[in-house]
Amino acid sequence: MSQQITLYTAKICPYAHRAEIALAEAKVEYTRFEIDLRNKPDWYVPKVNPVGKVPAIAYGGPTVPADQPSPESTKLVESLVLVEFIADLFPESGILPKDPVLRAKARLFVDAVSNKVSPAQAAVLIRGEDPEQLVQAYEAVQALLPPQGFAIGEFSAADIAIAPFLARIELNLANDLGGFPADQGEGPKILELLRAPKLARLQQYFKDIQARPSFATTFDKEHVLASSKRRFAELRAKKYGA
Amino acid sequence: MSQQITLYTAKICPYAHRAEIALAEAKVEYTRFEIDLRNKPDWYVPKVNPVGKVPAIAYGGPTVPADQPSPESTKLVESLVLVEFIADLFPESGILPKDPVLRAKARLFVDAVSNKVSPAQAAVLIRGEDPEQLVQAYEAVQALLPPQGFAIGEFSAADIAIAPFLARIELNLANDLGGFPADQGEGPKILELLRAPKLARLQQYFKDIQARPSFATTFDKEHVLASSKRRFAELRAKKYGA
Repeated sequence: MSQQITLYTAKICPYAHRAEIALAEAKVEYTRFEIDLRNKPDWYVPKVNPVGKVPAIAYGGPTVPADQPSPESTKLVESLVLVEFIADLFPESGILPKDPVLRAKARLFVDAVSNKVSPAQAAVLIRGEDPEQLVQAYEAVQALLPPQGFAIGEFSAADIAIAPFLARIELNLANDLGGFPADQGEGPKILELLRAPKLARLQQYFKDIQARPSFATTFDKEHVLASSKRRFAELRAKKYGA
Repeated sequence: MSQQITLYTAKICPYAHRAEIALAEAKVEYTRFEIDLRNKPDWYVPKVNPVGKVPAIAYGGPTVPADQPSPESTKLVESLVLVEFIADLFPESGILPKDPVLRAKARLFVDAVSNKVSPAQAAVLIRGEDPEQLVQAYEAVQALLPPQGFAIGEFSAADIAIAPFLARIELNLANDLGGFPADQGEGPKILELLRAPKLARLQQYFKDIQARPSFATTFDKEHVLASSKRRFAELRAKKYGA
């Protein structure tokens, strides 16, 4: 039997979102604790995650309030490690299938997300670099998709890894948020590149992800958008002056 | 039952070495094919790995010579994906234990290797940057080790991930090979930093790894040293003139 799970997370964070989707796929009861990343509680670093990031899981140990973590629970971090952990705890969730080849294919897809999509997102949406990087990253992961369905057929850790990034890229660009000057329509222009006919398969894939209950119930669009607006206002003030 | 396994590998490459250690731990018969990375056979990129790197595995399909790979076998790449694949195929190997918490701890250790040790190795041994980076990376992984034994107690994927890097760092530095000028004793000087008393636990750990048959039988010291000498002679000629 699995023991108690407390997830320290933040709605804005795509990495933390992965752990939430995985727990929703596992249909497991857990304690969710939202960490304000701009104002972390002072017990978080010493008692949960020394590097201060989300997501983190406190597993097992005595029943305690989430804001008074016990030294007796096991603390685990890193979004992809947590997704594998949840897959291991709940093999019947199908987060990773039983077949070793399919598991390897899921992990290769995750690897492409880590090495292509996340860096391109940071480059284009935060540093305002050439959007072509994002187009190429989308093409690279699209090339790994089967003609229909999810990354390895059934929904898996592969889709969990990419979903939070696709969702935030889309949401930010649609609202003209990014590492480029405001009010020049740059965001929607980049979004148009990502919706080009050559990326139609990826767009269909993203629609399938959005329809997945584990995604739909864990993505708080309004909250993420409001947080993003604050964040990009600060970024732009720093970059282009207030 | 598992199907045929052909491993495309290169003795010099620390990433490929991981797959060899994992297969040795699994005590499985497989076909080993050495790829000359400086002169790759022309079928390798189109028929095995589009990005041309080692390691790669051709799994299943008909019985064919390794240099005539069948389109019917599954091609898998990326060293860490391959180690997990071998662990999944052969769970009794113990490459990853059954306990989800221990599996997560092994993966967290692997993560530290990927994010600290490999980058520091490249920075110091190839680009000739401040050796302090390597000392800090060693301290970071040492901090994850238990008082004795391997990274999570029993030998696992965690140790497989780091072993090839520790071995190559040690061998190169002992032979004064690195991204620094030759014949000034810089290599042994850096090695001394890594053998400081504050890193004693890591040194003991490295001794334990060297005594592990799966490591000892897959590390061809003479071959790696000879290849390294050629490689660093070229690197230095480019950097400091011939």
